[in-house]
Amino acid sequence: MSVYEQRREGLYDWMAQEGIYMVMVEDREGRRDPSLRWLSGQPGDALLFLCVERCSFLVPWDINIAILHAEADFLLPYAEFGRQPFAALRGAAERLKLPKGSRIEIPSTTSYPRFLNYVEEFPDFDIICREGGVWAELEQRRAVKDEGEIMLYRKISALTDEVINMVEKNVQSGKLKTETDVALFIDAECRKMGCEGTGFETIAAGPARSFGIHAFPAYTGEAFGGSGLSILDFGLKYAGYTSDVTMTFAREPLSKPQEKMLSLTEKAYSLALSMVKSGLPARNLGIAVSSYFGRNKKTIPHDLGHGIGLQPHEAPSLRIRADNEWLLEPGMVIAIEPGLYDPNHGGCRLENDILITENGAEVLTNSRIVRL
Amino acid sequence: MSVYEQRREGLYDWMAQEGIYMVMVEDREGRRDPSLRWLSGQPGDALLFLCVERCSFLVPWDINIAILHAEADFLLPYAEFGRQPFAALRGAAERLKLPKGSRIEIPSTTSYPRFLNYVEEFPDFDIICREGGVWAELEQRRAVKDEGEIMLYRKISALTDEVINMVEKNVQSGKLKTETDVALFIDAECRKMGCEGTGFETIAAGPARSFGIHAFPAYTGEAFGGSGLSILDFGLKYAGYTSDVTMTFAREPLSKPQEKMLSLTEKAYSLALSMVKSGLPARNLGIAVSSYFGRNKKTIPHDLGHGIGLQPHEAPSLRIRADNEWLLEPGMVIAIEPGLYDPNHGGCRLENDILITENGAEVLTNSRIVRL
Repeated sequence: MSVYEQRREGLYDWMAQEGIYMVMVEDREGRRDPSLRWLSGQPGDALLFLCVERCSFLVPWDINIAILHAEADFLLPYAEFGRQPFAALRGAAERLKLPKGSRIEIPSTTSYPRFLNYVEEFPDFDIICREGGVWAELEQRRAVKDEGEIMLYRKISALTDEVINMVEKNVQSGKLKTETDVALFIDAECRKMGCEGTGFETIAAGPARSFGIHAFPAYTGEAFGGSGLSILDFGLKYAGYTSDVTMTFAREPLSKPQEKMLSLTEKAYSLALSMVKSGLPARNLGIAVSSYFGRNKKTIPHDLGHGIGLQPHEAPSLRIRADNEWLLEPGMVIAIEPGLYDPNHGGCRLENDILITENGAEVLTNSRIVRL
Repeated sequence: MSVYEQRREGLYDWMAQEGIYMVMVEDREGRRDPSLRWLSGQPGDALLFLCVERCSFLVPWDINIAILHAEADFLLPYAEFGRQPFAALRGAAERLKLPKGSRIEIPSTTSYPRFLNYVEEFPDFDIICREGGVWAELEQRRAVKDEGEIMLYRKISALTDEVINMVEKNVQSGKLKTETDVALFIDAECRKMGCEGTGFETIAAGPARSFGIHAFPAYTGEAFGGSGLSILDFGLKYAGYTSDVTMTFAREPLSKPQEKMLSLTEKAYSLALSMVKSGLPARNLGIAVSSYFGRNKKTIPHDLGHGIGLQPHEAPSLRIRADNEWLLEPGMVIAIEPGLYDPNHGGCRLENDILITENGAEVLTNSRIVRL
């Protein structure tokens, strides 16, 4: 049984318990949902219908791409349904012989006006759209990586470390001079390694722009690695999964506030890492770091971290909000990324990827603050 | 008065007519809405509240980026509200002194479960989430470019043509050999020109992969421009606006089916272009091309085109569906992109950007089918 079949089988069991007859998964422009890939291998741009009678039906935008990548019981091009989601859902319901009154769960991100349209279009079925249903279930299942995914993460992390080392060497030697040099070097190297690309748009911000959490634009022709603080935030995407690391490059002379930011960021990172263990509420990491920075009269203006996987940001969240109920569990892969930013002195951030294990944390990547 | 103020003033008038007291615009990860940038200059990652009493309130994730780019009457960091949209909305309602019972329109993409949360959290206000309200109004206003935007598009198109010419020369000479070579050449050149980047991930697909409408991955280490058909689909993003062009590279020897695909695609492109005029239903272009291909026993597996602007795909749509009610209007900028794809022979697509004028069409870019 393929890994996709295994995942679908697990979900069918859950659907049977919950009395859900069919689930519709949608991955399209403006509304990406990598659960589609997780369940079928199809990299995107498709609808997937899962029926509790253990049957899957994929409706891809591009049938040629699907034939190469996807694995589902039935495959029909979206054009067959006039590229119309209602028509596709109707087609799936007919082919899968859904009894009247069946409960069909549609994406929890379905807009309110669109949900009303579904209800109107399908009076014979019970259309369900909710937080906490199949989407929460998929989020939870995807957050805990299986053995194959963990092997994949070891490989992606090794590739990421190779890139980290090459970038460090080439910035040190002056071969990579501008933000664009660095960003495109990473893009070219990772594709040579067989990656699908970068996991997200690389952020390369020289000293004049590193004060932005996510510099805008993400990289430019400006100098990278000059005096002061430069930030490089990137990830490699391999077989769909992304790493996410941030290096800071610090070149002398550094001001006292810059030295302090670097030292606090490194200590905050070590503090968070030392706390990681199975069973810990994920928000406790965020709270500890916010409070550590607070005692030093600093503020972290973003969340401390997040899970990674088929999305660069996925569960579990490390945000400090009281409604964050995630607990760290063995098999989760998270990115921890404390950072400090100052319009006058620039910014610094340190980020690595960490596998939660029975015994604590296994640091997967070796990103660091580099002194130039 | 800045262009952002002018746009907001126009929208305030519309809000007054419609009896909407406040509008909330949201641009964040997974739910991008460039209307935020169109109304405030803020490139993204923020909430914007517009009050009918002619007051705007921006809540950016990164206050440092907002200070550099945004223009609004009030500015407060998202962290001030615990990075919580309900708290930000409540803060805006208090500061803007919204009377009880005021109508607040939230994004039409707001999910059904989340809409219920809003209604529950704000019993004192009338929370509205609909298609056809302010979002349709913004879509319509953004679809018709103003003088400044048209000037910008002339500039972006000239830059795009420069890149087109350089790519043709360098593929001809053999300097650009692989898909990655071509894609990263474009990325580097456009940033040198002062672009924010590419408008979307460049698709560079050599003969072995051009059968995919959007090749997956978008580009790899494979050869580009070898015997057969290669597709290059890219756009340059300048000051937020993107171009969108597709070149096909055809190298001898070509099979008869390949020659036929090229010739039909060029003719379909000319046919669509010849029909463009103000007042024409946009779907008529799509219908004419589908029917032309149909008479030649071919199918176009995607829409014929779309508007471009702050998003690579925006209004007007050229899709042939009966519910596409867009009419071409002077000031609209559209991409026309007929294409044919065959798993055995590869694919070809020809795409240029066109400004709708009082007198018909002004072709802005000069992409083409290149014979190697």
